[in-house]
Amino acid sequence: MRGVVMHAPGDVRVGERPDPVIEEPTDAIIRLSATCICGSDLWPYRGEDDGVHDMAMGHEYVGVVEETGSAVTTVKKGDFVIGSFWTSDNTCEICQAGYQSYCIHRTLMGTIGTQAEFARVPLADGTLVATHGMPDADLIPSFLAASDVLGTGWFAAVAAEAGPGKTVAVVGDGAVGLCGVLAAKQLGAERIIAFSRHADRQALARQFGATDIVETRGDEGAAAIKEMTNGYGAHSVIEAVGTQEAMMQAIASTRSGGHVGFVGVSHGVSIPGIMLFGTGVHVHGGAAPVRRFLPQLIDLIENHAIDPGKVFDLTLPLADAAKGYEAMDQRKAIKTLLTV
Amino acid sequence: MRGVVMHAPGDVRVGERPDPVIEEPTDAIIRLSATCICGSDLWPYRGEDDGVHDMAMGHEYVGVVEETGSAVTTVKKGDFVIGSFWTSDNTCEICQAGYQSYCIHRTLMGTIGTQAEFARVPLADGTLVATHGMPDADLIPSFLAASDVLGTGWFAAVAAEAGPGKTVAVVGDGAVGLCGVLAAKQLGAERIIAFSRHADRQALARQFGATDIVETRGDEGAAAIKEMTNGYGAHSVIEAVGTQEAMMQAIASTRSGGHVGFVGVSHGVSIPGIMLFGTGVHVHGGAAPVRRFLPQLIDLIENHAIDPGKVFDLTLPLADAAKGYEAMDQRKAIKTLLTV
Repeated sequence: MRGVVMHAPGDVRVGERPDPVIEEPTDAIIRLSATCICGSDLWPYRGEDDGVHDMAMGHEYVGVVEETGSAVTTVKKGDFVIGSFWTSDNTCEICQAGYQSYCIHRTLMGTIGTQAEFARVPLADGTLVATHGMPDADLIPSFLAASDVLGTGWFAAVAAEAGPGKTVAVVGDGAVGLCGVLAAKQLGAERIIAFSRHADRQALARQFGATDIVETRGDEGAAAIKEMTNGYGAHSVIEAVGTQEAMMQAIASTRSGGHVGFVGVSHGVSIPGIMLFGTGVHVHGGAAPVRRFLPQLIDLIENHAIDPGKVFDLTLPLADAAKGYEAMDQRKAIKTLLTV
Repeated sequence: MRGVVMHAPGDVRVGERPDPVIEEPTDAIIRLSATCICGSDLWPYRGEDDGVHDMAMGHEYVGVVEETGSAVTTVKKGDFVIGSFWTSDNTCEICQAGYQSYCIHRTLMGTIGTQAEFARVPLADGTLVATHGMPDADLIPSFLAASDVLGTGWFAAVAAEAGPGKTVAVVGDGAVGLCGVLAAKQLGAERIIAFSRHADRQALARQFGATDIVETRGDEGAAAIKEMTNGYGAHSVIEAVGTQEAMMQAIASTRSGGHVGFVGVSHGVSIPGIMLFGTGVHVHGGAAPVRRFLPQLIDLIENHAIDPGKVFDLTLPLADAAKGYEAMDQRKAIKTLLTV
């Protein structure tokens, strides 16, 4: 089959990869309908992760079940399915508590590489969720978003305890941050402040529910939030970047007793204990347990209540994946969908 | 009046200090019935805080209202009252959300110094809570504990979301950690594991509700918790020390999706973002909003449902405060009560 391989930082190509096969009775093989490039794929692309060498890429996926292992019971050949970047048994105590991304039997789809024609999905019963019938083509981008960026933004909003009466601030105007805006809106937040200095992203943030935009960053950005909230700070702050500056900005923007929900993949972030002690904010985040939210997100998408597929502002065939990486690296695209 | 002054690290003496007077119409003056020495008083005593020089000491207090400012309405002369180490207006949005220790008008009682015969309490209406009548002498140690260590341990247990069905681990066997054990028990925790290697503290932990004791620390201690919980880790972990090792032990002892409630005053603690990302634990803590819990704690003490006064294993007259500091520094006492 054809699939994307990163040979070295900056060197992404589509080439031949082995067809996946059922390895465990709990596996399923899916034929990808669409996949995409993640903001986190840019870290190795930019040489900011160590040891990238001939790595199969991609961890976001929607597609049709092609084959199932003998133990799989909840999805069957022909189902249109969505899964998360972490597989999960959905039965262990961690999964049952809603933290499927930390399942004791989890495996990372990124090590399998879903920017390809086919993919093997381990723990299919606990990982995949089928839509109600074969979706119209126009819904596929939104379902694909649910596989990661929507599920991740949603988790960030839940971790930040966004809800009625709350002022929510969102650090990061990438696809995840924008989906955090959308999630905060769906969760009933009263006021949603997006940090952004890009007109196109500001526009999408407003479409998704942002009531205010702040263009400053760091201490200045946090001061703006304080000023907009009678000096208190936001109740809920989403951190969707993963840098030290973004985390500090998020904590500084949060009122005492408020909640930071962070989903940016931490790159060298260090949180001073005295800062948490001094502010009394809650900090929670990590790898989003997308599986927890998938049934609800699928319903919202099928009912056209949300349209997270708008985060894809560039669509390319899988063969042109390299162009997609380049466009995202250069911030010419928020997020690239790859048709398969 | 007589009061405790720390002239330099290790040099604590009782001397003459000015009698406090009403400075603001929201102030009250109390005559101390009892006060005590806090674990956090040992940081400057040991020279681990900068700039200690002729500092009035003490922030825990119970006593009788001697005089009130013209604006005070909820307590009156003759009331027996308890307050927290942070004063609070109890009306701002932060207070109303239950975070009185971060009140926008807060002041620190530690800057006033309650190891003395009298103390001025700012924001008396929002800070002090009166008992139902003059308490029997045997309840005074427990009310004094409510002023800080009980309220702090209680907050840690709440922040860690201790409750029915939960396994709670407690890092730190000082007075706060022990009160965390007591709080976890009151909150209905199923299993309470105390880290302790001191027989006397282990005994008190068991009296307060600990079901298990772990004598190892650090990674080894965390591994013990994992082993006792089918590999998952505790649902709720209280951190009541304030060192890097204690925080790392607390996070490592917590299951993914679980909660760390920390109340140790952070001394050089740094939390790697990637550790929070990789574990998915919640982290929340800081200066305990004791005022939130005082009415409930007073009821529990008056009804003899809890006896947190047991954490005081040394009672001395105020004049002998120096001996109390020495005993706590040398771990000969868990906590010293000073009669006034």
